[in-house]
Amino acid sequence: MTDPELVRAYHGYIDCLNAQDWPGLDRFVHPDVAHDGKPLGLSGYRKMLQADYRAVPDLHFNIVQLVTKAPQIACRLRFDCTPSGTVFGLPVNGRRVRFEEHVFYTCDAGLIRDVRSIIDTEAIKAQITRT
Amino acid sequence: MTDPELVRAYHGYIDCLNAQDWPGLDRFVHPDVAHDGKPLGLSGYRKMLQADYRAVPDLHFNIVQLVTKAPQIACRLRFDCTPSGTVFGLPVNGRRVRFEEHVFYTCDAGLIRDVRSIIDTEAIKAQITRT
Repeated sequence: MTDPELVRAYHGYIDCLNAQDWPGLDRFVHPDVAHDGKPLGLSGYRKMLQADYRAVPDLHFNIVQLVTKAPQIACRLRFDCTPSGTVFGLPVNGRRVRFEEHVFYTCDAGLIRDVRSIIDTEAIKAQITRT
Repeated sequence: MTDPELVRAYHGYIDCLNAQDWPGLDRFVHPDVAHDGKPLGLSGYRKMLQADYRAVPDLHFNIVQLVTKAPQIACRLRFDCTPSGTVFGLPVNGRRVRFEEHVFYTCDAGLIRDVRSIIDTEAIKAQITRT
């Protein structure tokens, strides 16, 4: 895959998440995908994302900065949402929070195979402490 | 700057940090650098790094994953260190902690001008809670 193809594929992946098109996830994610070193596989990865949507019903993935060099992708994702209960161990309880996630992906045959993510939980904490 | 030049420059930057070569920082960092939206400028950026070394005397920057597409750089940095007191609001107090930082840089004329960073404070918290 060329870099422009990878950019297009990544946008397709993000559109797939935002549409909650779970059957379509296999067009972007490798059957043996791992997340932060955990070998979830496609079905485990899908379950993780579905759980994210249950915790944050208005979840929406926004690409802020995208750096691609095949087979690698790095992305800053921004969220602006109202998690209903506790997320990342933080009692957000319906408040509106804005935060980023910085994610690195390695692809294999054009599919996301390894994901390394850090979520800015400090930003969320600061927002729920302040309000 | 081409992508391979940017990779070389970034390795030079990391070597500069690890050598604590503060006068040499201007070879890599723009005079008007901003960090997470804060316009620190080169002198403020240098002070931030010097403060990091005071808090973590055995600080060492290790590149784990590097994605470059000029003028952008994304890097996973790994740390294995023993902060002497409190860092990121966490009472580490000399315990050994291992964690990552995911950083995105935008360069201008080959110099780092914008830095966006998230540190995996959750990993640190888990380690100091466990030990």
